[in-house]
Order: sequence, then structure tokens, then C-alpha cells
Amino acid sequence: VSLPPGFAERCAAVVGPDHVLGARAELEPYATDFWRHTRGEAALVLRPRDTAEVAAVVALAAGHRVPLVPQAGNTGLVGGGVPDASGGQVVLSLARLDRVRAVDPAGDALVAEAGCTLASVQAAAEAADRLFPLSLGSEGTCRIGGNLAANAGGINVIRYGMARDLCLGLEVVLADGRVWNGLRTLRKDNTGYDLKQLFLGSEGTLGVVTAASLRLFPRPRERATLFLGVDSPATAVELLGRARGRFGELVSAFELIVATCVEAAVEHVPGVRFPLAEKAPWYVLAEVAWSLPEGLEAAADAWLEAALEDGLILDATRAQSEAQRAMLWRMREGISEAATRLGAIARHDVAVPVARIPELVERGAAVLREVAPDAYLIPFGHVGDGNLHFNVVLPRDTADLPAVRQRLQTAVFDLVGGLGGSISAEHGIGRAKRAELHARKPALDLELMGRLKAALDPEGILNPGVIV
Amino acid sequence: VSLPPGFAERCAAVVGPDHVLGARAELEPYATDFWRHTRGEAALVLRPRDTAEVAAVVALAAGHRVPLVPQAGNTGLVGGGVPDASGGQVVLSLARLDRVRAVDPAGDALVAEAGCTLASVQAAAEAADRLFPLSLGSEGTCRIGGNLAANAGGINVIRYGMARDLCLGLEVVLADGRVWNGLRTLRKDNTGYDLKQLFLGSEGTLGVVTAASLRLFPRPRERATLFLGVDSPATAVELLGRARGRFGELVSAFELIVATCVEAAVEHVPGVRFPLAEKAPWYVLAEVAWSLPEGLEAAADAWLEAALEDGLILDATRAQSEAQRAMLWRMREGISEAATRLGAIARHDVAVPVARIPELVERGAAVLREVAPDAYLIPFGHVGDGNLHFNVVLPRDTADLPAVRQRLQTAVFDLVGGLGGSISAEHGIGRAKRAELHARKPALDLELMGRLKAALDPEGILNPGVIV
Repeated sequence: VSLPPGFAERCAAVVGPDHVLGARAELEPYATDFWRHTRGEAALVLRPRDTAEVAAVVALAAGHRVPLVPQAGNTGLVGGGVPDASGGQVVLSLARLDRVRAVDPAGDALVAEAGCTLASVQAAAEAADRLFPLSLGSEGTCRIGGNLAANAGGINVIRYGMARDLCLGLEVVLADGRVWNGLRTLRKDNTGYDLKQLFLGSEGTLGVVTAASLRLFPRPRERATLFLGVDSPATAVELLGRARGRFGELVSAFELIVATCVEAAVEHVPGVRFPLAEKAPWYVLAEVAWSLPEGLEAAADAWLEAALEDGLILDATRAQSEAQRAMLWRMREGISEAATRLGAIARHDVAVPVARIPELVERGAAVLREVAPDAYLIPFGHVGDGNLHFNVVLPRDTADLPAVRQRLQTAVFDLVGGLGGSISAEHGIGRAKRAELHARKPALDLELMGRLKAALDPEGILNPGVIV
Repeated sequence: VSLPPGFAERCAAVVGPDHVLGARAELEPYATDFWRHTRGEAALVLRPRDTAEVAAVVALAAGHRVPLVPQAGNTGLVGGGVPDASGGQVVLSLARLDRVRAVDPAGDALVAEAGCTLASVQAAAEAADRLFPLSLGSEGTCRIGGNLAANAGGINVIRYGMARDLCLGLEVVLADGRVWNGLRTLRKDNTGYDLKQLFLGSEGTLGVVTAASLRLFPRPRERATLFLGVDSPATAVELLGRARGRFGELVSAFELIVATCVEAAVEHVPGVRFPLAEKAPWYVLAEVAWSLPEGLEAAADAWLEAALEDGLILDATRAQSEAQRAMLWRMREGISEAATRLGAIARHDVAVPVARIPELVERGAAVLREVAPDAYLIPFGHVGDGNLHFNVVLPRDTADLPAVRQRLQTAVFDLVGGLGGSISAEHGIGRAKRAELHARKPALDLELMGRLKAALDPEGILNPGVIV
């Protein structure tokens, strides 16, 4: 596959020759995904620095029918931001669009370009005494444009919603290179169809997000961060109900973690030590927070005591300092990486109705015994949202690992489907789950998605091979 | 205009002859909107009782190219649910689809049909010890399908979001009569494009909502409801910032009301009396709430005392009983109706960035002096969302009232546009604001809306003349 003659040169005239990458070694990091499961071939990498340059290169690509793969932080877990193996796709990196354009604390809003890291958006909010609540393991390197394109989730969804819910407006370069300016910061605007919803979660297949206006929240002033040992997922779900019953929406995180993952994090994440006196088969990491200056820690202790008395908790601690709190979250966020030391990982980012989490874990273990008897489950995740990273450790020397991963995925997705769940809770579809999506979604859903794609990208310029 | 021969009979075979209305007197209530500003002519009214019947009549209409106007509670304020004057449009009433299909307290979700009144959805949630937070003046008669189709707002948006934000899934009859089942209750589901977003807020122009799965929340256990006299909108905005700074997202309502509206409600709404000792030019009705059993009232009193000491409040009361609280909210919700006693009303449902509310009021008064010197402003609304019902009282004997209303609307919308605001915060576009939308939205926005309409309703069967 080769690019149309003169295409690279015309792009260089727009973005400057230093920002058109073509050498094999330069392309490689842009063509390989985070877990190194998907290795594509990029024809070229373009690195525009602002919206006008993005618009110009998209117009060039449209004119030459060159397929583009928008990429922000390249931390996606489903291959949605890397090119396919054809060698004909061009990576459009948004990384240089990294300015926070405006912060409006009175309006609880900020405007950031697509290439801002999530951490830099959080920091800009904090500097204005506000909270931008999207928070996930890769926040230091993932970029907000990717978070929005993938509708990212993370640890605070139970209270603040997904990336979609945190977005007030978008600036988008359309498939023909025109710029749609939907960068409003209003809380209410019912003037026709809400066009930004099209682009949120569409993984760069309907338009290229270049900037976003984002919702800010009051900063919590007091937090109670609890780490609990429990006997089972069923008890964790019961505790979640009790926590929501007592604290309502003040519950800002409620994570379930299998013991193996805590142990892996304690062993492999620097500075993390086991925080309890007693071991347990499962752990819960939960946080409640409010804007008032005091009273929440005492309320959390009372809640904890009642749960201990009722025999729901095997052992518990409440973080006594910001350093202890940070360590607990470092442990949580280090799990994915630490678990790679255990063997070859098969990952399944699934969701079920919260009440069916225990059934998912039980029946998942049975599925595993049948499909991969040498493997074991290491589930962890956002049980408050019904979302588990239902991961599996396989022996590294498993024969024909890709085939086993595939069989396992099919069996897990069958199980999740039977429980009324979702085969992609927060990671998206990308290239990795496209076949599963098409095999499992009703034909009418796929038809409607196809109509949207045809309406917004009739030439198929944007991220072909992803989702539709 | 006449319907195709045999159309009414075929519809009667689907929904039963009792539910095909054709007599003039029967049609009239379905063809007139809430404020009796828009009087259309319905060719027929169809009253199906379930999704299958809706699908069958939409298929019939599509086959005969008969335009349909979906209607739920007929409480919309922009003529989006009533037919035009052509006499060729058929009203499709969803009122008989009024069952709550399922309530899942553990999953914080319920599934309700489009014709359920908002009050009945609230009641179903409450019976399961949960809160469905959408709340607005017409909640006893408006229906959830209409709330979702219009993306309704109301008094709790500052905390819980708009109708769109409260929706987990939809069941929709498409323009060709097929049923799209998107009734998921999962909190997280990133499996392709989020198709429900298309139909939310599209006012029945892209599909007919027949049922919805809705988010429930923990019920507040303690509330503090405050009624404050203040000297100006600027002070109200300052108090809003102080309230959010102290209580964060626990602020669940923050309404600004001009004195005239409070006086009208006191005079005309049964059982409402003026709750303060001292009069003020403006009032704030605010509420904070949480799930904990106690402590909030004391915190609210301390906040109130500090604001009084700082001279921000002229007089204040906190509701001392549920009855007092109910009276304050009855006052608020009675304003629209009570204000009709003052004269002929020109209504403008607008939003601006919160910080610009005072400027909107000041400059709006200047606009009024120029355009309609006999008129006076009676703004009230959801200042916490930057949303004012920027209404105007005109003398009843104003010559050529429609033309004055039109001039006033143009001038107010020009002002709002200049402040970076929205000409429809929560009421939508319907028929009433379609021309203004098309005159004011960028051409690219209108083009994209047109592409969506063409993708989902290529024959233009659904609610022609609304939005697009």
C-alpha cells in the first residue's frame, strides 16, 4: 500500500516537515497499542499543532481518500487509536494540541484541547479550586480527546458519571475538514439536536475532537477512604447498598478487588504495603467525600463500626492521612500493571446489573474450569457501576495463546450476555472487539450505527475498521 | 387536506375504533398547546395502547406517507406536540402507554412507558425508597415520554442534570415502524454509538419514544429549604457561589424570583402566604439535601447566619416542617399560572453563563424600555443553571400583540446571543422557535441536523415542521 503521490509533501506544507513522521522507527510507537496486543502499520504520522492544521490535513486526506486514525494519548485498550495492518492508514496525532484555553470557575467549566493529558486538565481545575472528576490509572499519559472519544469511565463514575456526562461542548473537525464549533459551556441548551453526543464515544469514526468544554465540580474538602476485607463479592454488593443508603451520592468510589491483585500490587508497586492486619479473599476500596469541612470521617467511622458489628467486614482501615489515601489509590491503580507479572493476561471489561456481580464471578469461575482449566480469575473493578475487569491469568507457556484468549472471551461474553450485561463497559470497541460487536448486537443497532457513519463520514475517511 | 382512503379504517383495525378520534370536538384538545398559543388542526388522533400498536400505526403512516405528531402529556411550551394548521397531520397520542414495567432498587433503575405521568414515575421510585429527581411545575400531567423527547429540565438540574442525564435506555419506534429496543439499565455500556442520545431531545422528529429506563438515586433523608430576600440578581449569584462552596453538589435547587412573581403567587395560588417579615425586590428559593439522617439543618443555619452577617440577605426563613417546604415549592411552581393574571405574557426560556445573569437582567430591562415601553419584566427561574424564564408582562390591550411579542423575542434573543447564551434552555424548539433557530444557528449545525433527520426519517413522517 502506498500513499497518493505528493500527499506527504502537502501535509508537510501544513504541519511543517518535522511533524510528518515516516521512518519506520518513528512510526512504531504510534502503531502499537498500550498492551502491545495490536501492532499495526502506519503509512505516516501527522502531528498538527492546532485546530486549523487538523482541519487542513483532514481536508487533504478527504481529497485523496486517505484513511486517518485519530490518536491522542495512545493508552486505549481496544486498539481504537492505532492503525490496522494494511500499512495504508495515516495516524493523526492530537498530542500537540495541549493548551487549556480557558477556565471559568464561576461557571464551573473549562475548555481544553484534545491533546491535554487528563492530569493536566485535573490540575487546571484544581488551580481554580474546582474538581474535574474523571480519574483513571493512565491519567498521567492519556489525553482528554481520547477520553471523550472513548467515553472513558474510571473510579469516580458512580458519583460523577462517564466522560460523556462531564462534557458540555466539543470542537470537532468533520470528515470533510470543516470545523464544527460546539464549544458551549452552558448547562442548559435545548436548541435542536445535541450534536456533541454523536462524537462522544464514537472513537474517532465520526469526527476528530480537537477541543472540549468540560464540567467542573466543587472540590471535596473532607474525604473518608476505606479499605475493607470481605468474604465475597455478595458481601461487597451488600456493603455498597449500605453505603449508598447512608451516604447517598457522596459515595464517590466503590471498588472490588480480588486478593491476588492486592498481593500483586503490594509486591510490585513501589511504596505500596498491605494496609490491614488480617488477610481476606476480597477487598473493597471505597471513598466518600463532601465539600463541608468536617463531620464525614466520624460518620464513616460509625458506618464502619456498624458493618463490623454486623459481621460484614473481616478487617478494615480508614486512611489517616493524605499519604495513606494516596497509597491505597496507588495500589488500586497499579493492579493492571502488577498483574502482568502473574502470567499472560486475558482481559474482559464487562458490566452487569450490580445485583448480578456475585453470579458473574461464580459462573465465570465455572466457565474458566471448562475453557481454560489451568487459568485463574483475577477480577477487580468498579463494582459500584456493575463494571468488573473480569481478567484471567493464563500460564505463559499456554499453547496457542491467541486462540485460548479468543475462546475465553467468547465464553465470558456469552455469560455476560446471558446476565443482561455489556461486553464493553468502559474501554470501547476499537478494532479488538469489532467482530464481537457485530456478532452480538441486534442487526437494527448495527444498521442505525451504519446510517450515522454514512451520514457523517460517507467516504469512510475516519478510523476505518473501528466500531462500524 | 384529506387522509388517504382507508387510512383511518386501517388504523382502527389496529388500535380499535374507540381510539381513533375524528370528530372536531374530540380533536381540539389534542391540537391546542398548553398556553393556547398554537392552535393546529389534527386530521385524526390515534391512541394506541402498547408498543406493538404504536409500531403498527407508524408503519401504516409510513406506507401512506401520512405525517405523525407524537404527543404525550401535551404540556410542551413550544408547540412541539401539536399539529400544524394544515389539517393533514395525525396526532399519535402515547397517553395510554402508562405502565411502570419494572423497578430495580438494587440497580437504581426503573422502566416506564412513555405515557406515564412524571408524578407516577416519581411515586414508583419513592415506593422503592428511591428518588427520581426530575421535577417541574406540570409534573402531575406531563408524561415521561414527552419529558425525554424534549430533554426537560426543572428545579433539580443543578444537582441531577436534565432528562437526558437521567435516562439509561430507550425503546423507540422508528420512522418505518420498526422497534428499536435500547432498554438497558446498565450504568456503563460502551458498545458502539450511544443510539439513545439521538432520540433524547429530538422532540419526536427522529423516532417515537415508547418506553425508557431511568436512573434512580438515593432518597434524601434531610433537607434544608431556604427562602431569602435579596437586593439584586448579582447578590443571588454571589449567594449561589457561597452555597456551592459550602455544600458542593448537595445544593439541589437554587431559584431566583422577582418580587412581582412572588406577590402574584401569594395572591392567586391557594394556601400560599408570604413567608418573610420583610419584603425584598428579589427572592431566592434554595434547597440542600443529603441522605444522612441529621446535621444538615444546623449547617444550613450556620451558612444562613454568616450570609446575614455579611449583609447579603435582607430577610430569610428556613422551612420548619414538610408543610412549610411544600408551600414554598407550591409558590414557586404556581408562578407561571399566577403571572397570567398580570397581563399578556411574553415568555423567553433562555440561558446564559451563570456569571452573566445580572447583566442579562439589567440589559433586558433596557431592551424592554426600547421595544415595549408599557411592559415590565418578571424574570424567575433556575439561576443555578444560568437559566431564567425571562418573561415580560404586556398590557392586555396591546395593539397587535403577536407582532409585539415577535419584536420582543427578537430583541431578547439578540441580547442572549450577545451574552453567549441559548435561546432555548429547557423548553426546546418545537414549531414556535423553529424560525429563530434557523435564523440564528450556524449553517453547519443546521446541515448536520438535516443529515441526522435524513438518516433516520428520510420520508419526513415524524413531526414535520418541528426543529428541522
